[in-house]
Amino acid sequence: MERIPVAVLGATGMVGQWFVRLLSRHPWFEIAAVAASERSAGVPYGEAVRWIFPEGIPEAVRELPVVLPRPGIPGKLVFSALPAEVAGPVEEEFARSGYIVSSNARSHRYDPDVPIIVAEVNPDHLGLVELQRRKRGWEGFIVTGSNCSTAQLVLALEPLRRRFGVEAVVVVTMQALSGAGFSGVPGVAILDNVLPHIPGEEEKLAREPRKIWGRLTSEGIEEAGVRISAHCHRVATRDGHLEAVSVKLSRRAELGEVVEALEGFRGLPQELGLPSAPERPIVVRREPDRPQPRLDRDVGGGMSVVVGRIRPCPVLDWRLEILGHNTVRGAAGGAILNAELVVAKGLL
Amino acid sequence: MERIPVAVLGATGMVGQWFVRLLSRHPWFEIAAVAASERSAGVPYGEAVRWIFPEGIPEAVRELPVVLPRPGIPGKLVFSALPAEVAGPVEEEFARSGYIVSSNARSHRYDPDVPIIVAEVNPDHLGLVELQRRKRGWEGFIVTGSNCSTAQLVLALEPLRRRFGVEAVVVVTMQALSGAGFSGVPGVAILDNVLPHIPGEEEKLAREPRKIWGRLTSEGIEEAGVRISAHCHRVATRDGHLEAVSVKLSRRAELGEVVEALEGFRGLPQELGLPSAPERPIVVRREPDRPQPRLDRDVGGGMSVVVGRIRPCPVLDWRLEILGHNTVRGAAGGAILNAELVVAKGLL
Amino acid sequence: MERIPVAVLGATGMVGQWFVRLLSRHPWFEIAAVAASERSAGVPYGEAVRWIFPEGIPEAVRELPVVLPRPGIPGKLVFSALPAEVAGPVEEEFARSGYIVSSNARSHRYDPDVPIIVAEVNPDHLGLVELQRRKRGWEGFIVTGSNCSTAQLVLALEPLRRRFGVEAVVVVTMQALSGAGFSGVPGVAILDNVLPHIPGEEEKLAREPRKIWGRLTSEGIEEAGVRISAHCHRVATRDGHLEAVSVKLSRRAELGEVVEALEGFRGLPQELGLPSAPERPIVVRREPDRPQPRLDRDVGGGMSVVVGRIRPCPVLDWRLEILGHNTVRGAAGGAILNAELVVAKGLL
Amino acid sequence: MERIPVAVLGATGMVGQWFVRLLSRHPWFEIAAVAASERSAGVPYGEAVRWIFPEGIPEAVRELPVVLPRPGIPGKLVFSALPAEVAGPVEEEFARSGYIVSSNARSHRYDPDVPIIVAEVNPDHLGLVELQRRKRGWEGFIVTGSNCSTAQLVLALEPLRRRFGVEAVVVVTMQALSGAGFSGVPGVAILDNVLPHIPGEEEKLAREPRKIWGRLTSEGIEEAGVRISAHCHRVATRDGHLEAVSVKLSRRAELGEVVEALEGFRGLPQELGLPSAPERPIVVRREPDRPQPRLDRDVGGGMSVVVGRIRPCPVLDWRLEILGHNTVRGAAGGAILNAELVVAKGLL
Repeated sequence: MERIPVAVLGATGMVGQWFVRLLSRHPWFEIAAVAASERSAGVPYGEAVRWIFPEGIPEAVRELPVVLPRPGIPGKLVFSALPAEVAGPVEEEFARSGYIVSSNARSHRYDPDVPIIVAEVNPDHLGLVELQRRKRGWEGFIVTGSNCSTAQLVLALEPLRRRFGVEAVVVVTMQALSGAGFSGVPGVAILDNVLPHIPGEEEKLAREPRKIWGRLTSEGIEEAGVRISAHCHRVATRDGHLEAVSVKLSRRAELGEVVEALEGFRGLPQELGLPSAPERPIVVRREPDRPQPRLDRDVGGGMSVVVGRIRPCPVLDWRLEILGHNTVRGAAGGAILNAELVVAKGLL
Repeated sequence: MERIPVAVLGATGMVGQWFVRLLSRHPWFEIAAVAASERSAGVPYGEAVRWIFPEGIPEAVRELPVVLPRPGIPGKLVFSALPAEVAGPVEEEFARSGYIVSSNARSHRYDPDVPIIVAEVNPDHLGLVELQRRKRGWEGFIVTGSNCSTAQLVLALEPLRRRFGVEAVVVVTMQALSGAGFSGVPGVAILDNVLPHIPGEEEKLAREPRKIWGRLTSEGIEEAGVRISAHCHRVATRDGHLEAVSVKLSRRAELGEVVEALEGFRGLPQELGLPSAPERPIVVRREPDRPQPRLDRDVGGGMSVVVGRIRPCPVLDWRLEILGHNTVRGAAGGAILNAELVVAKGLL
Repeated sequence: MERIPVAVLGATGMVGQWFVRLLSRHPWFEIAAVAASERSAGVPYGEAVRWIFPEGIPEAVRELPVVLPRPGIPGKLVFSALPAEVAGPVEEEFARSGYIVSSNARSHRYDPDVPIIVAEVNPDHLGLVELQRRKRGWEGFIVTGSNCSTAQLVLALEPLRRRFGVEAVVVVTMQALSGAGFSGVPGVAILDNVLPHIPGEEEKLAREPRKIWGRLTSEGIEEAGVRISAHCHRVATRDGHLEAVSVKLSRRAELGEVVEALEGFRGLPQELGLPSAPERPIVVRREPDRPQPRLDRDVGGGMSVVVGRIRPCPVLDWRLEILGHNTVRGAAGGAILNAELVVAKGLL
Repeated sequence: MERIPVAVLGATGMVGQWFVRLLSRHPWFEIAAVAASERSAGVPYGEAVRWIFPEGIPEAVRELPVVLPRPGIPGKLVFSALPAEVAGPVEEEFARSGYIVSSNARSHRYDPDVPIIVAEVNPDHLGLVELQRRKRGWEGFIVTGSNCSTAQLVLALEPLRRRFGVEAVVVVTMQALSGAGFSGVPGVAILDNVLPHIPGEEEKLAREPRKIWGRLTSEGIEEAGVRISAHCHRVATRDGHLEAVSVKLSRRAELGEVVEALEGFRGLPQELGLPSAPERPIVVRREPDRPQPRLDRDVGGGMSVVVGRIRPCPVLDWRLEILGHNTVRGAAGGAILNAELVVAKGLL
């Protein structure tokens, strides 16, 4: 099969590199262009990037000259890892010019006609792009993935929501350094320390699930009524956000039912056999001390979330720990899975 | 003034060393004996201990020969940093022989006639020792301090409990390595990692506040009805437990009132001017990213708790972050303050 | 091809687990038994071990009951990851009973009739086992691998030694936590710290290369005259020992020759195509800031050493940085490669 | 006594904050102005700075408005913590205008008429400012402190140089994060890692001691002939550079003599009783595992260097470990001590 040419916008940053790494071995997609800022334009990717992975830069990409993120790039599908400060207008320009943009940036997440997709959770929200195209008169469209802490939270809770309803969530995150980008957290700031604040993060965690769990209508998304209280922290781990969660359900559940719901969960990506869909989107561990970021972040190639310590909560209903790979499931991998969904639904 | 001779049981461990360090510059107490296990007995303290602090071993203690933890030790007041496996019967033997034991071990915390004292919170529970002596026919008695995560939690919430009532608490801890003792957490286990489980800790956090906040009656403590949901984690910090807390109050409060209650709080130790009582038991920070373990753990000599990020909670009532020095306020310092209270109340 | 049954002694420790992990996918060998101390004997391996790797315990081993390390175990080849305190007599007992022991323990390293083999460096020293068998009247024999810091040092310097001669080495190590075993270095001891001492390590580093680089004669090994000055440190990395080396050669060399010698080096394991032999035993990096433990330790499956920053030394002749995976090349992987050599030479 | 008004240039950076912290409790000096870049100019210091220390910003400085680093500032003495990119011309402008500049920047270190002073080592080099003033026609002058890794090395070796002569040094550094400034090393880069390269550092370490140990003549400094081979690394510690050193002396020494020379060493700052001079410039530890960065960096208020593990070197003559506080002795503290020397010598 001929592979589909794609481009990565913001290809030299940390999430951009994850896109390059994951796409370089993708069965459907083939990197046709890498775009970054003026500073890198014209330079071969291999020289422009400060590559962060142990294994080398993929051969096929190393010699590609970096281009500016402007329409004209080969293909019709672009992945955006642009910084939020510039992503907004650039992504619009691409969509207007007929490209499909699968974005990791937050710039358009809260636009009423742009969906936030977590592929196993709300694949039907792709329907919103009809409205988007019509309203904006665009040939292409923008699809966003959620914030990293949100993605793993809504995925892990989705089976409970479907079966028992989710009314309220208290979530305390212990987030990895990579979530802030390569230079986001200085070593001296985090050594022997925990930072009890990540700007904007708690607001995203409170807001995005309401949209993702919302109902698609002909007018847009009707937000869900779930209440979410987030406390966000940065800790000294490289990858893998850990979330301690207390959740209140609408209906009474037994422990066995909760575990069964989580373990048995499969979404549309699994049914369709999408290449980036992990066989088991949710892996449940029964040991008392799992999940742990270092041991569990790479499960399912970083696309599974790992849940453990499921036990009753004396204040809400259930306590559990959720771990997800923030730069895979919570960023590049999630956006690639969304693009696979777009292709599978015949929207390309 | 003649200083009161005291002994430290379990003096070579991490908490034991904190006792030695803090007592060596204490205005009321003077270390007359250091006790440890068979292995160290007879050896000068300076040789028996693997001293963990940058500054050297206090002169006055370095040459003291380590003794076995048995009655006969000079003085009437002993501090117990014994491991829980041995503390139970040893502390009883001391109390039976007329000693007053201020203990950091958990062995007797849940005995109905032994109080768990956090000096600013429930100094009146010292009254329980009357019952203890009577029931057991002891001349001396045992007073315990709470688990480290509990101490800072109940202290920080005490002003809210007094003014608004506390109904329910969801608390997620990020606890320092020192809380597990010097060899408690291997470096390879915690590097680039978070451990989502500390054996027994969540049970202690759920149970101890109910006793501490309970009502002293002639028959013992009537436990408080507060519900506490704890999620405990070990993170890569040396000292200072951080707690992300959502709390439900009995009565409605405004932000200004909450802050005022916390900042204005003073307890009996402050009124009595006890030497280890920090001027301000609770310090409130207004910056968005405080408290941080490395920056705030030593406030008030490690005896203050630092509270920050006070903001409404969409699920319960208020969210806040609490930081306390686990080996000072949460262990040795707390037990010394309890002993000061004992002395001030004329119980010695 | 039928695989050769092997056993792992000390299979529950950190190096033991590496043996199990590497052997479980080995093309020649098959784990027939796992042995450990009394404490674990009789228990299925999966329950006896505190497994340290992200991926699970290999299926084929999980259910194997742990046995005591005593002759009678199936097969003729055993790998020893026993602690040095017990390895000595146990390994002898196995060799006496006809087993071939490929050991990672230091117990017999300095016996005059036991070789220390680094497979690319001194495969001819296997010849010493003839003497060993004759002198001791054993049917089997013992082959040891070197200390972890030594293995990577002698391997990286071997091409220089062969071509230019090595007279003196100043080596400063920055060693990973795993080198001390799972519980070897407490988290509180190493956080925000470097430990400038590893008991016995400098002596091993000074002594072992003299034997490894020695000349095999009919009477034993004639030690090489090289002088080695070692400074050993423990740093906060998980795996991968880094060594900063200044070396004095016997003959003058140009930079190009040094690089060429290192990059072009192949040993007997490469010629024989042994399964654990990395294609390139030495990988040279030209970037100014490589090798780095986290990025380079897994090169060649952890069996290559990575050399970088090759530059003249104003005091001796050349400066360079050497990185090796301490628990693979420096322990389990090295001992497996040695066993492959034994098999390939028809000594099994 | 009236305190001498001083200014800190580059007061908001990490070294600048150390200047502010140390000067705020200085018996001779009083901060009269804090200068930084355009970005902060006009803003009160307390708002312009991201304060890094646990204790708060000194009262006396918090409200000072930040000014631009230009002559006109009150007083005659300025401390420069300016970044090297801008320090050169700014420091010259101050000196030309009659100020005495005690600089931590490298910009003028290698000017033939500017001394690099380590106060205990080469206080006589202050004589070079005569030449500097004459040649440049300046009323003021510039005095620099050495690079942080150099300062502790030349100080620790000075007693050996005086008594036995130093011919050659191999030094391997393990340098703290703070040496790179607050944002110099990203957390993701150093977690579970060692960086084997610090741009420009090895060149400074090779070059500066030759000047510091040089002979002052009427024409300038005649450099010493010592050869220095440096290998520089960044490790995950906050403060405190550790150096593993092998040294070749001109004359034979016994261990007792080496220790005695180091312990007995006192310099001019000690003789003059300068306020920042530690009582013992060199502290020798005899334990096998000291010095350690976390335990020993604050000795002598961060102004002592701690030496340990003194033992023969099989390649050169002696091996030892040297630890110094990089931002105190190696930066702000060293520059303040230099200024005290200037005052004591009547040069202000």
